[in-house]
Amino acid sequence: MRRTGRRPGNPDTREAILAAARDAFAEKGYDGASIRGIATGAGVDPALVHHYFGTKDKLFLATMNAPMDPLEVIASAAEGPVEQTGERFVRIFLEIWDGPAGSAGVALLRSTVGNEWTTRLFREFILTQILRRAVPKLGLDGDEGRLRVTFAASQMVGMAMARYVIKVEPLASAPPEVVVAAIGPAVQRYLFGEMPGVFPAA
Amino acid sequence: MRRTGRRPGNPDTREAILAAARDAFAEKGYDGASIRGIATGAGVDPALVHHYFGTKDKLFLATMNAPMDPLEVIASAAEGPVEQTGERFVRIFLEIWDGPAGSAGVALLRSTVGNEWTTRLFREFILTQILRRAVPKLGLDGDEGRLRVTFAASQMVGMAMARYVIKVEPLASAPPEVVVAAIGPAVQRYLFGEMPGVFPAA
Repeated sequence: MRRTGRRPGNPDTREAILAAARDAFAEKGYDGASIRGIATGAGVDPALVHHYFGTKDKLFLATMNAPMDPLEVIASAAEGPVEQTGERFVRIFLEIWDGPAGSAGVALLRSTVGNEWTTRLFREFILTQILRRAVPKLGLDGDEGRLRVTFAASQMVGMAMARYVIKVEPLASAPPEVVVAAIGPAVQRYLFGEMPGVFPAA
Repeated sequence: MRRTGRRPGNPDTREAILAAARDAFAEKGYDGASIRGIATGAGVDPALVHHYFGTKDKLFLATMNAPMDPLEVIASAAEGPVEQTGERFVRIFLEIWDGPAGSAGVALLRSTVGNEWTTRLFREFILTQILRRAVPKLGLDGDEGRLRVTFAASQMVGMAMARYVIKVEPLASAPPEVVVAAIGPAVQRYLFGEMPGVFPAA
């Protein structure tokens, strides 16, 4: 059944696109899935997919019920004095996860880890979308930049695991400003610090 | 059927105890499950449970197929110069997870996160067993010590997620000594460093 031409804003259309997108990403991976193929699967025009969801990465995040767009978080954290980038990262992250979107974040982490296939799909998205764009956005470069960002990401993911998924006290109930003061400098060092034995001194 | 009296070393007995322990932990939580109840469930004498598995925490780790005993890792890392404790932690952790036990670690993380109940069971174990004993073992104290250890744990869990579960490059393939040089100092700071805004200066 062709559903092209339904008016924008129709929740059935939106759901049909999301369902087709979930199928396509699960079947073909992130790179293999196309907006055109997803539109065909949903029985709508590709323009309507763009209208509802924008780009493929935003559609992917919508299918995963992501509580945030990592690239928007990175763009926000990159604005301002570079020496406070780590703190801004942690603060923005906590504002989202301590808020109503936090439960979506927990569900996303659970499903990412849940089975090998969702893990692989998420890995592909991180590598081709987040990492490739985050590194230049932060003024970093090449293999060193990628390694720095993955070290920082490991701390952010671990904080989400400890505070929001496993909920281990006293970290789970620590005031956000305490968490920012503790973890911000570690993230800052990973992104921009000198790290003997990791990278040659600048 | 009572199976008391089977000779030690019988794999069926061992499996029967593990199965009864899994049921008991799932049904009653870590604190609620007892060696006596588990022995009854397996149809063996409680002494045989101790003979096979030692203490309740070791039996719990065996039911979870844990790749390591966190308390042994902490005890090893606590030995030696205090200013290298963070590096020793990360090094011991990597030796285990980079080795043949790593896949058990990934399975454990997956099952910990997999559903609310296993997460809660694991949280209870962390709080009542690991944290309570790790804090004094590291020469730390009270709420500050517990918060320090949970910050350090958040980085270790995040590293396991990024390197072994999600396997995001280039972190997944980075040489262990590079990971130790990057993450060791962050763990060291969480455990023993001055952290303005987190704890009052000593």
